[in-house]
Amino acid sequence: MCVFCKIISKEFSSNIVYEDDYTLAFLDLSQSNDGHTLVVPKKHVENIFDMDDETISHVFKTVNKVSKAISKALNVNNINIINNNGKTAGQSVFHFHVHIIPRHENDQIKLEVNDRSKELKPEDYTIIKDKIKSYL
Amino acid sequence: MCVFCKIISKEFSSNIVYEDDYTLAFLDLSQSNDGHTLVVPKKHVENIFDMDDETISHVFKTVNKVSKAISKALNVNNINIINNNGKTAGQSVFHFHVHIIPRHENDQIKLEVNDRSKELKPEDYTIIKDKIKSYL
Repeated sequence: MCVFCKIISKEFSSNIVYEDDYTLAFLDLSQSNDGHTLVVPKKHVENIFDMDDETISHVFKTVNKVSKAISKALNVNNINIINNNGKTAGQSVFHFHVHIIPRHENDQIKLEVNDRSKELKPEDYTIIKDKIKSYL
Repeated sequence: MCVFCKIISKEFSSNIVYEDDYTLAFLDLSQSNDGHTLVVPKKHVENIFDMDDETISHVFKTVNKVSKAISKALNVNNINIINNNGKTAGQSVFHFHVHIIPRHENDQIKLEVNDRSKELKPEDYTIIKDKIKSYL
């Protein structure tokens, strides 16, 4: 049984902030900033690649609810909501989970995304778009 | 009207990969990696702080669908799903949007979250947990 399944079954203790029939929300041990929370489905789903629509709906309704509570409780107006899928994307526990991370000016979190728009031509976008559309 | 509302109404062109009654998915111009896609609700919602459960469900069902298509189309097994709320959290367009970012070994994206677990005592977690729970 994975570590999050053990937290869900209460075999492992955690700092639970919210629970319903489908999801659990608990403080991330790292607390990168106060209020850093994880939301998980109770159903064991590894990541987005084996996720179903019903489960992802439940998870993000809880993310919505808990984010607002964190905002009010800790007076936070800036939040990153992050879900990592696969080891190279930073996933370390292979049970789908969403990080709710309060943000403050000059904190210790880095989130930098490069911009390749000046390297790409309009036809490059068309090729990528058409590949993706062929699976939708 | 905000730039994403103009993309939704087709006043501005974009590289659309998926559209339904509630959501639109289109390529992010930055294409940090090939396939970098944004999913937005058609309804103008600024960010998580004024989000409703029905809209967030629609958005993440589309994220689920489009992530799988990107994975298959571009042979990607690592994806970050990121939603930034508030300027300090990196939000630049104030219409709720979710980044789907394919990841590769040694790419140009940085996502680093600090770990304060050694600085915190059990009672620190309890205080934070109780504050959040009081709003749930």
